[in-house]
Amino acid sequence: MSNSVSSNTYFVGIDGGGSKCLARLESLEGDYLGAGLGGPANPLHGLERAQNSILVSVGNALEDAGLEKEDFSNVVAGVALAGVNLPSLYDIMMAWEHPFKAMYLTTDLHAACLGAHRGGDGAVIVVGTGSCGYSTINDETLTVGAHGFMLGDKGSGAWIGLEAVKAILLADDQLGQQTLLTKVICDKLECKPLDLIELLSKAASSDFAKLAPAVFECVERGDELATEIIQSGAHYIESLARKLLVNKPPRLSMIGGISPLLVEWFKEDLIEQILPPLDQPEQGALYFARAEFDKQNQSVAVG
Amino acid sequence: MSNSVSSNTYFVGIDGGGSKCLARLESLEGDYLGAGLGGPANPLHGLERAQNSILVSVGNALEDAGLEKEDFSNVVAGVALAGVNLPSLYDIMMAWEHPFKAMYLTTDLHAACLGAHRGGDGAVIVVGTGSCGYSTINDETLTVGAHGFMLGDKGSGAWIGLEAVKAILLADDQLGQQTLLTKVICDKLECKPLDLIELLSKAASSDFAKLAPAVFECVERGDELATEIIQSGAHYIESLARKLLVNKPPRLSMIGGISPLLVEWFKEDLIEQILPPLDQPEQGALYFARAEFDKQNQSVAVG
Repeated sequence: MSNSVSSNTYFVGIDGGGSKCLARLESLEGDYLGAGLGGPANPLHGLERAQNSILVSVGNALEDAGLEKEDFSNVVAGVALAGVNLPSLYDIMMAWEHPFKAMYLTTDLHAACLGAHRGGDGAVIVVGTGSCGYSTINDETLTVGAHGFMLGDKGSGAWIGLEAVKAILLADDQLGQQTLLTKVICDKLECKPLDLIELLSKAASSDFAKLAPAVFECVERGDELATEIIQSGAHYIESLARKLLVNKPPRLSMIGGISPLLVEWFKEDLIEQILPPLDQPEQGALYFARAEFDKQNQSVAVG
Repeated sequence: MSNSVSSNTYFVGIDGGGSKCLARLESLEGDYLGAGLGGPANPLHGLERAQNSILVSVGNALEDAGLEKEDFSNVVAGVALAGVNLPSLYDIMMAWEHPFKAMYLTTDLHAACLGAHRGGDGAVIVVGTGSCGYSTINDETLTVGAHGFMLGDKGSGAWIGLEAVKAILLADDQLGQQTLLTKVICDKLECKPLDLIELLSKAASSDFAKLAPAVFECVERGDELATEIIQSGAHYIESLARKLLVNKPPRLSMIGGISPLLVEWFKEDLIEQILPPLDQPEQGALYFARAEFDKQNQSVAVG
């Protein structure tokens, strides 16, 4: 039967995101065999492309391990994707006629959390292009934030960039405080303040997130408005952390490119409770796949 | 020559917007002849569609006037469109091989202002789906706001709707104040708070603007958060009005569906300075076309 465990069974953990897809291949015993990269894998932005990116990343990981690139039939895949918290999208992805021995699907947040705590319970806060918090404790999960760029994601890189552009335009109308952000961001984009409207009319969250470093630069140079933006964002992420801590997770980690820049604005008692992530999200996806695969095979053995 | 004035010369004023295009036809002497409706005419959202909508609206106005529907050759058109404040878009529209006797192009804001003040100098504030201020005084123009949905448009219907959704999601995470907005808006959209994320993931500004009436309803019912949103929006529009008044426009009017709902939040001294608009934007486009046509024919006569 297809679910039987043989010595040539491999496990792969896949962390699929909006810009890339990372696969980590391990042996049945847990030895690292190889890694592979694929393209964007957010099923919300295209199901077929996401599935293709997953196959490319696993193919590359198999090749990296010196194995047959196209031979997916011995591979048990743990796939972590954004968006599959939506039941409709979860069902569509699960209906995929994938070529793997078995596939287990979970959210990117769940995999990030499992990775951060080496497969154990805990909580994570992700502040990169977007922002959110997540915890899993005794099989109970909690998601806070994750509202998306336009409706929330406060404190995130995209939110910071957007707030900076809003502040520049208000200052340009002389209806808001003058700010160093105008010079720093307009120099960076080689434009005048009003050009920002056309330039950013079709900008994605990732485009706004690219402006975040300029805002932190202005904070360092003492700009009041830039400092207010970062403080307000940090305040929200702090409240999100305290919300997660109510359930007493064994560990709390922060990941994502903006996280280390915000932590210094937190109160001391909170900073002390933030522990470094132990493993990467693709390793979290591997922990998930192994646990699910074991459960299924145990029940088969018992049955 | 094509610009000569004969008794069968007609003038049409066209107000083209994101959802529809309105044409008003008048005789050389200024008598009303007919009106016509066309489809969306925002050139930013499709140049050909905008041009087609303009022709449809003028054709319908000619027909309404009992004239030959397809005979555009005696029609001098004043065309007012959003987006043509951008030089690139202005040039593209002006390069159009239109069928009119002559075409004069200006912005929707300019036409709205000319309409509101019967062709004279003045200032207007438009608060509908978006928000902005504009004045024209002694051939000097000033635009304030008009930053677009994502980057600004504070106080507008879309902004009000967006702020309400943000507040609902924060309240749902128990990271923001509880609010009546949750019940009123979720009842209206027949969904749970978290469903708003998927439901509005591809929403346009007009979709958010449709939520604004629910926010005003919550204000009437005493909801604190809804009241804060409206007060904050009204405060911005008030500052925009005061900015326009610095240049001492002969008149100041407010137009757009949200305007009357915000005025009551202004300080008394400002409310007293707001006068009703005298004519519609398509009439403003007519004033513009007549003035430009006269200028050109005078210079031809002088030359």
